[in-house]
Amino acid sequence: MAEGPPLPVPVEPGRIEVIALEGIPEIQPGDDLPQILVSALRATPDAFPPRDDDVLVVTQKAVSKAEGAIVELETVEPRAEAIEFAERWDRDARQVEVVLREARRVVRMANGVVITETKHGFVCANGGVDASNVGPDSGSIVTLLPEDPDASAGRIRAAVREVGGVDTPVIVSDSFGRPWRWGIVDVAIGVSGLEPLEDLRGEPDRDGRVMRSTVRAVADELASAAELTFGKRAGRPAALVRGAAFRRGEGSIRDVVMPAESDLFR
Amino acid sequence: MAEGPPLPVPVEPGRIEVIALEGIPEIQPGDDLPQILVSALRATPDAFPPRDDDVLVVTQKAVSKAEGAIVELETVEPRAEAIEFAERWDRDARQVEVVLREARRVVRMANGVVITETKHGFVCANGGVDASNVGPDSGSIVTLLPEDPDASAGRIRAAVREVGGVDTPVIVSDSFGRPWRWGIVDVAIGVSGLEPLEDLRGEPDRDGRVMRSTVRAVADELASAAELTFGKRAGRPAALVRGAAFRRGEGSIRDVVMPAESDLFR
Repeated sequence: MAEGPPLPVPVEPGRIEVIALEGIPEIQPGDDLPQILVSALRATPDAFPPRDDDVLVVTQKAVSKAEGAIVELETVEPRAEAIEFAERWDRDARQVEVVLREARRVVRMANGVVITETKHGFVCANGGVDASNVGPDSGSIVTLLPEDPDASAGRIRAAVREVGGVDTPVIVSDSFGRPWRWGIVDVAIGVSGLEPLEDLRGEPDRDGRVMRSTVRAVADELASAAELTFGKRAGRPAALVRGAAFRRGEGSIRDVVMPAESDLFR
Repeated sequence: MAEGPPLPVPVEPGRIEVIALEGIPEIQPGDDLPQILVSALRATPDAFPPRDDDVLVVTQKAVSKAEGAIVELETVEPRAEAIEFAERWDRDARQVEVVLREARRVVRMANGVVITETKHGFVCANGGVDASNVGPDSGSIVTLLPEDPDASAGRIRAAVREVGGVDTPVIVSDSFGRPWRWGIVDVAIGVSGLEPLEDLRGEPDRDGRVMRSTVRAVADELASAAELTFGKRAGRPAALVRGAAFRRGEGSIRDVVMPAESDLFR
């Protein structure tokens, strides 16, 4: 048979699939999360080995618990400011204390919410400190953000590569509120193996015009897409996003954090 | 054969698929976008008729162009403030003028960007006025946000229902920047047939604890997921998101817009 012309390669695939990983138990401090994720990849139909166009998204909660980034509230002595705020807004003063300890800067304290800037540079409600959904005895502990979410993503990526033989980019995600809009959406708080921003500046668009200022936060969109499969009560903590266009690389979530002096909204 | 117990219903499916619609030409003013979308649904494998768990996401650019929400720049007489700002930052003064005209409030003018609050209540860069990717002669026109994006979504929903016999919720999406983080992500700016916010407050989570303050901006996450299939150069303007959990209803994007007095970030 004569060889025909090469088939066109779909450079920009128009389909993605998001596959939540199955069978992941509630993570406990000290659990080997990378190995649990590899087992879950194996247990989930179509998920193992990951494909070249897969990104693995894992929730902050699972990462923080496995890494022991938790605080037992009974060990916390709240400062006066935390007690006052907690009494006024019917909150746990010890939890408010942990939020304040984790803060590099307090942006605002009002309406029962403490908006802080974390040491990572994230501006978010309650500094990413979370009491919900942390385990059967969860009344008494809170999770913190991982110490170094990029490194957390890197360790998961390394484990998947070692066992699965595939270099799968990893995103650690968390649910953040936004100014001006109600509701939380999942965003990336740590990445490994991909560029979290897709800089299209200078590339021509469909009409051949040069797009002047299009930088896409692709890691954040991947995190949001993954969240749609986690379920509210099911509490799935990880998913593969398959088929999305992204750029491999050694990007960091620090690329996404906007310095105050560049932020027109501050 | 004896009837066994009913099969468990997967209330919270762990998979979604996003299917960009194929064959949509560059939209021109006056085009019948709802009918074009119905044709594209028919032309896209697996897309027609839409399933009960599908949401149709359509970009603002396509909607605005079809509705004629455009301004020919040669008709625009920029005010002094627009001329000064444009000269300083190497921008088109007429485009800056349109941004100012569309604004209910100017939040900030700096670094070549005008942050405004639109009449819809959205706070975004350049008031959603966009010169990129609008057509072969696009040097001379800009698109505005649709007059009433909920109504735009409703018209598309009605057309799909009439032709396809399925009541498919519709989201009109646009790419917005965010404070504190680099990069744009797609969010919903108009909805029809679904609740844009999923209010989980008071529902028990995986551990049986009551989640206190979880309101998910599900329409925004659906918009972000859809964007991952649009392609950068391909310029696809619509996609089905299939399998995500969402609540049907007669929600409005006004539900998402946070009043200034509730916004701790302002």
